[in-house]
Amino acid sequence: MRALLGGKGTGLAEMVALGVPVPDGFTVTTKACVEAMRADGTWPDGLWEEVCDHVAALERRTGRRLGAGDRPLLVAVRSGAVVSMPGMMDSILNLGMSEPVAVALAAESGDERFAWDSCRRFLQMFGEVVDGVPADVFERIISRSKLDRGARLDTDLTAADLRAVVDAFRAESMTPTDPYEQLRRAIDAVFRSWQNPRARVYRRAHGIADDLGTAVTVQQMVFGNLGDRSATGVAFTRNPATGANELYGEFLPKAQGEDVVAGTRTPQPLAALSGVLPEAFAQLHGTMRALERHYRDVQDIEFTIERGRLFLLQTRSAKRTAQAATRIARELAEEGTITREEAILRVDPGQLDHLLHPRIDDASRGAALAVGLNASPGAAVGAVSLDADDAVRRARAGEAVVLVRWETTPDDIGGVIAAQGVLTAHGGMTSHAAVVARGMGKPCVAGLEDLQIDLDARTIVLAGRVLTEADIVTLDGATGEVFVGALALAPATVNEDLETLCRWADGARILGVRANADTPADAVIARRLGAEGIGLCRTEHMFMADDRLPVVREMILAADVRERERALARLEPMQRDDFIAILTAMSGLPVTIRLLDPPLHEFLPDLVEQSLLVERLQHGGPSAELVRAERLLGRVRRLRESNPMLGTRGCRLGLLYPEIYAMQVRAIVDATVAVRARGGDPQPEILVPLVGFAEELVRMRDLVTGVVDERIAVPIGTMIELPRAAVCADQIAPAADFFSFGTNDLTQTTLGVSRDDAEGAFLAAYVQDGIVPANPFSTIDVDGVGALVRLGLEGGRRARSALRCGVCGEHGGDPASIAFFHEAGLDYVSCSPYRVPIARLAAAQAALRATARP
Amino acid sequence: MRALLGGKGTGLAEMVALGVPVPDGFTVTTKACVEAMRADGTWPDGLWEEVCDHVAALERRTGRRLGAGDRPLLVAVRSGAVVSMPGMMDSILNLGMSEPVAVALAAESGDERFAWDSCRRFLQMFGEVVDGVPADVFERIISRSKLDRGARLDTDLTAADLRAVVDAFRAESMTPTDPYEQLRRAIDAVFRSWQNPRARVYRRAHGIADDLGTAVTVQQMVFGNLGDRSATGVAFTRNPATGANELYGEFLPKAQGEDVVAGTRTPQPLAALSGVLPEAFAQLHGTMRALERHYRDVQDIEFTIERGRLFLLQTRSAKRTAQAATRIARELAEEGTITREEAILRVDPGQLDHLLHPRIDDASRGAALAVGLNASPGAAVGAVSLDADDAVRRARAGEAVVLVRWETTPDDIGGVIAAQGVLTAHGGMTSHAAVVARGMGKPCVAGLEDLQIDLDARTIVLAGRVLTEADIVTLDGATGEVFVGALALAPATVNEDLETLCRWADGARILGVRANADTPADAVIARRLGAEGIGLCRTEHMFMADDRLPVVREMILAADVRERERALARLEPMQRDDFIAILTAMSGLPVTIRLLDPPLHEFLPDLVEQSLLVERLQHGGPSAELVRAERLLGRVRRLRESNPMLGTRGCRLGLLYPEIYAMQVRAIVDATVAVRARGGDPQPEILVPLVGFAEELVRMRDLVTGVVDERIAVPIGTMIELPRAAVCADQIAPAADFFSFGTNDLTQTTLGVSRDDAEGAFLAAYVQDGIVPANPFSTIDVDGVGALVRLGLEGGRRARSALRCGVCGEHGGDPASIAFFHEAGLDYVSCSPYRVPIARLAAAQAALRATARP
Repeated sequence: MRALLGGKGTGLAEMVALGVPVPDGFTVTTKACVEAMRADGTWPDGLWEEVCDHVAALERRTGRRLGAGDRPLLVAVRSGAVVSMPGMMDSILNLGMSEPVAVALAAESGDERFAWDSCRRFLQMFGEVVDGVPADVFERIISRSKLDRGARLDTDLTAADLRAVVDAFRAESMTPTDPYEQLRRAIDAVFRSWQNPRARVYRRAHGIADDLGTAVTVQQMVFGNLGDRSATGVAFTRNPATGANELYGEFLPKAQGEDVVAGTRTPQPLAALSGVLPEAFAQLHGTMRALERHYRDVQDIEFTIERGRLFLLQTRSAKRTAQAATRIARELAEEGTITREEAILRVDPGQLDHLLHPRIDDASRGAALAVGLNASPGAAVGAVSLDADDAVRRARAGEAVVLVRWETTPDDIGGVIAAQGVLTAHGGMTSHAAVVARGMGKPCVAGLEDLQIDLDARTIVLAGRVLTEADIVTLDGATGEVFVGALALAPATVNEDLETLCRWADGARILGVRANADTPADAVIARRLGAEGIGLCRTEHMFMADDRLPVVREMILAADVRERERALARLEPMQRDDFIAILTAMSGLPVTIRLLDPPLHEFLPDLVEQSLLVERLQHGGPSAELVRAERLLGRVRRLRESNPMLGTRGCRLGLLYPEIYAMQVRAIVDATVAVRARGGDPQPEILVPLVGFAEELVRMRDLVTGVVDERIAVPIGTMIELPRAAVCADQIAPAADFFSFGTNDLTQTTLGVSRDDAEGAFLAAYVQDGIVPANPFSTIDVDGVGALVRLGLEGGRRARSALRCGVCGEHGGDPASIAFFHEAGLDYVSCSPYRVPIARLAAAQAALRATARP
Repeated sequence: MRALLGGKGTGLAEMVALGVPVPDGFTVTTKACVEAMRADGTWPDGLWEEVCDHVAALERRTGRRLGAGDRPLLVAVRSGAVVSMPGMMDSILNLGMSEPVAVALAAESGDERFAWDSCRRFLQMFGEVVDGVPADVFERIISRSKLDRGARLDTDLTAADLRAVVDAFRAESMTPTDPYEQLRRAIDAVFRSWQNPRARVYRRAHGIADDLGTAVTVQQMVFGNLGDRSATGVAFTRNPATGANELYGEFLPKAQGEDVVAGTRTPQPLAALSGVLPEAFAQLHGTMRALERHYRDVQDIEFTIERGRLFLLQTRSAKRTAQAATRIARELAEEGTITREEAILRVDPGQLDHLLHPRIDDASRGAALAVGLNASPGAAVGAVSLDADDAVRRARAGEAVVLVRWETTPDDIGGVIAAQGVLTAHGGMTSHAAVVARGMGKPCVAGLEDLQIDLDARTIVLAGRVLTEADIVTLDGATGEVFVGALALAPATVNEDLETLCRWADGARILGVRANADTPADAVIARRLGAEGIGLCRTEHMFMADDRLPVVREMILAADVRERERALARLEPMQRDDFIAILTAMSGLPVTIRLLDPPLHEFLPDLVEQSLLVERLQHGGPSAELVRAERLLGRVRRLRESNPMLGTRGCRLGLLYPEIYAMQVRAIVDATVAVRARGGDPQPEILVPLVGFAEELVRMRDLVTGVVDERIAVPIGTMIELPRAAVCADQIAPAADFFSFGTNDLTQTTLGVSRDDAEGAFLAAYVQDGIVPANPFSTIDVDGVGALVRLGLEGGRRARSALRCGVCGEHGGDPASIAFFHEAGLDYVSCSPYRVPIARLAAAQAALRATARP
């Protein structure tokens, strides 16, 4: 039903069935929209006739006539996609309106102001949505009217003022007076709004298919702006920011729905409604409970109270922060509303990334410059950016920015995606900015009254302080605080809700979860976050440390093996100490140590810089410094590769300079013996990088076993990170105790895409233009890279049935990729420490979904 | 039989069966050698006893006793691999010798000088081969003896001189006097010689497996040094340099076989033998004809005449030049000795490369400085190199060298491979240098008497002219001429023999053969050499021309699309004219034009150079030149990629800058229309490079079809050169009219090996150390890259059964790779114009072998 009626239509139909009061109406299906889209906008045969029949039936049921007579019927025409896309598509309210209808409505309601307010709203909305009249045309007329009358708010305008506004609107727009013409064009506009740019961007950001289309619900208008006993609002059955089981929402008296969502007036908290309209409030409260029980999930509800009578306009699953998602899932399970398995499936693991991101370090937190609404939690640090285009441009150039806006509109969606966080002067907790930011896990501070924006001067004034676009601000979305300057951030800790869910997940998942950790500190964090071992310890990162670089450089510049071995002898105790600390931290769990991988030239100065240095020194005549610089330049030039990614790396290096790997293996052996002597249970594994030919691994295995003595037994495995290794896995497996799929490099070679070069250049354009469905370095390219992973697994296990196979690319922490790895039959994934909880949950979801499927 | 007895043993056995006179003997099998190798040199059980039994039988048949009695038996112990490896392994002659035996032999033969000559030969050979005594130890003793006696040649030494030489030899070596001890150690030394370094290098160069082992033939000695009516020599049934059906060979009177082969004395032409020993000559001549008829191929025969009696010591298929190979194959077929199919299979297509290489341009040919023997045809230009190590080192550094040696020894093999050609002062047409050079298609001038070499001064004196290692010489191996300086070379033309064979091959092959040609001149050559179209026309090579580079640079530096289009508009007529010329040259045949592929920065100056230029200009203060240089530097820096091979190339460029491809397509369309207007039959095809995702090709197809108008129909295909394209070929095929497998790039990405970086670095070491069986850029890596080609073919044809699939990598001209492409089921290969005849022949061989197999 949902696929045909959309989320809104389905919710309404279900509410009717539950006896919840909703305005009468009908829904045009998504199928009609899809057919119209495919026919370049031409409606399917008979659709219009069917709409007219349903209008006639509605007229019969309500005893009213569309846009005519003493009791005119007004309707709302609302979009309703299958997957909720708040604010992304268009709706038109008060349809059927015209000046004669306004007069009739005034007579019927006895509220002339209400009638003309509804009329100007219709003209404004129809003009903007259907005819594309710029919004500021209407805003200017209203502003002038308020200025003329000395009014502060829209509600201060009188019926006569509004009547004049209507006349002024008419002069600016061509809105038809025939209600059926209005209806036809309104439905058509909603159909078309599925294709508007901001909806497309939103769908891409949320992975929603482009060909679903939208349903259109036509409903009798109920009026939240009909006198003092009317109101409109938004309510959540639990707090969508924290997950707390408490009343949460906002309302505006004498208003229509868009006033709340658009953030043009700052609304009151829902609790205050109990004082204003106690009966309606009580009914709403009861309905909220019933709906949550029915849907077994937190609901986001739109309601209108017309002269004390409650109507629900919409109910849907509430968008929530990661923090709220975990708490709600856990509590719903503990209350018995859902099962533990359902609880695991309720949390979007991708969203948890945010929860697991750093927050403001308490030590660095000074006094806030200003405090707004804590609309979406998390900490954001970035330079001020004043519009969406600017934010996108600067973010692409690698700058961290915070989008600062008066209020955000759906058109700002691209800027919200690009920014670290969002700061707005207007709007409440349910404003567009807040909803979108929460959905994306972006920190957001909203409704900061003490913020002025000067778009001409490109400055903002924040609590009296002038900031330019070069200034950095820090937002704390959890408290609503705004700081000037970049505050230090501290790593997040996993809260009890997430820990509970992860524990449940551990019982449901099949995939093992390890962490990629190169330092003892990372190893400690990884273990705390539930890693079952280290899947990848990159020894080159140990070489990069400041105190080691000079020794590493000496090793590379060595004229012969003996000089090189002297430098290696100095590195060896450092490596051994690192391994001792890591193996101690991971005592009892496997630690996969990869032998040195990166190109040697990475440890040397940049070729251009060194060439310029020599050039400059040459001006000073002969000197010892010049000789040194020239020697270094020669070496840099000799080691330079035109494509280092495809050069002398990994085991190629190990085969050319066996003394380097021999030193590393000795350090591993000695560290293992030392940790064991102290009562630890070290479990090292040695991983050989960049193997393409079986013979490479055979020789590296000989090298390693030649160093490893009888004191320890250490499994020797290989990275599968070249297409050849995947295709020839059956030849390689006999020499491997385990495989570790390096999907980062495998993606680079399979796609022929250098990550360094592409992500800033054509790959960004590819994602933007939909040439690729997602960035293949974030989510594994299942058809290409995934096919090679499958080939590698099949080949490896054909040759060695018990072969242990893991993944250590960054995809190991990506939920969509984890689902693939589960399905492909890998034994474990390994990801960055902070992604371990995500991986645990995603692995459990993959297992549960796979079980549910057949 | 051959696998067990080796080439020599098999030949002897067959000759016995044919009634050809050979010395009596027996053969130890390769199996014994292989078993001994595997057991680290320990002989298999019972082998020695079996050898002794055969010696006893030989003693009975000859009425002689090994190394004892009045009629002592002497034997030759000879290596004999399955595949002929001339000069690479060891033999020991005159075994069974000792001083008492020499005395007995002198008495029996009545020739004291012969007896002591044989004795010193034995001590010298056994000492060198079995005990590793350096050759110069013996040479010094002989030289001193000759000096003492005022003798010029070895043959001038008397019996007494030689007796003294024997005593001096004894003082320098520990050769046993027990003949069975001699025999055991000699056989063992031959076994071990299979593993010596020069044999390994030879096997690698000729693709011979390392685990075949050698057989050992033990034969009664016959003596070419027994008085005036004795001689020894080498004969070919046809001329192995030209293929002419004529008498060819050399002999030395009063000599043993090694004197001819080693080139220490310059022998006489075979024809002269008819004057010296007419009966033996007539018998030899008849035997040669009989053997050629029997083996149905040209034979290389070793013979000895002992006191007028002819013995054949060996017969084998003659190594021959490419020119000879084609002529012999053709003539044997035309004579009816072999079938046409056999003729096609007789020629090694790899060898033809040499034949198809440039020769000395007649216009540039002046007077030669000196003339030696025309030992191996072809022209070579290079700097003088005086030893093999030097030649290898300089060749690796990219220098072209000519190896100049007194005479070459088997230890020089590495230098011969590295050099452009070989020049020696000593040795005849059948000397080691000549045989090896011919086998490799290296030009060689041998026996140049007017050449002196001063290794201390590192100079040579050539016909009185002193040359250093910096001087360039040009050799004409076809005439034996040597020139000082670099002569201009002219392209080779296909001779009538090769043309005939290729015509026959065309009837036998299934694979189509096209050429890679970027210029009208190349297209003309390709068509002349039999190309059935152009499989790859690289438009970027057109952009590289000197007169276009400034315009191309303008295009790249363009600030916006309009500026870029202005530059493109200037390039367009140039491209159109190129296409007109190419399509005209190929009228009636398909021409596959690949749209621009390489990274833009290749057209700009080097980053380091430009940085240094700016640095230097900055010293001079502000200037317009500095501004220009800085602007260019900024652009170079922006376009620089850390891994350009995996960067913004191919269709990625086309999608970012569609105007470039649009210009190229317009030029193709206009050229097609123009050629047709002139009565030509242009058949262009458009090839999209570097496609990885189906969507890329779909969009490029839209771009192309948007430009191509109804005047022409042009197939649009895609390169398959990324692993992803191969794996996802079924998704890509629906948008492709044809596939062209770019195996160069596919090898780079599948193996993760940058050709530019690897071939000089680790890949050379990999080939050297046997980690890879062959350079994967020369011969396709069947297990890895080949598996992806198969996947791509299967996927592509699954989606589109009639999909045309070709190969345009350099592997398209490599015979081993062509065999794979035939087997995989490709439709055509495309290779460089000069390799077209090779590909035609190799394709026919692949088809014939595939038919023969089941």
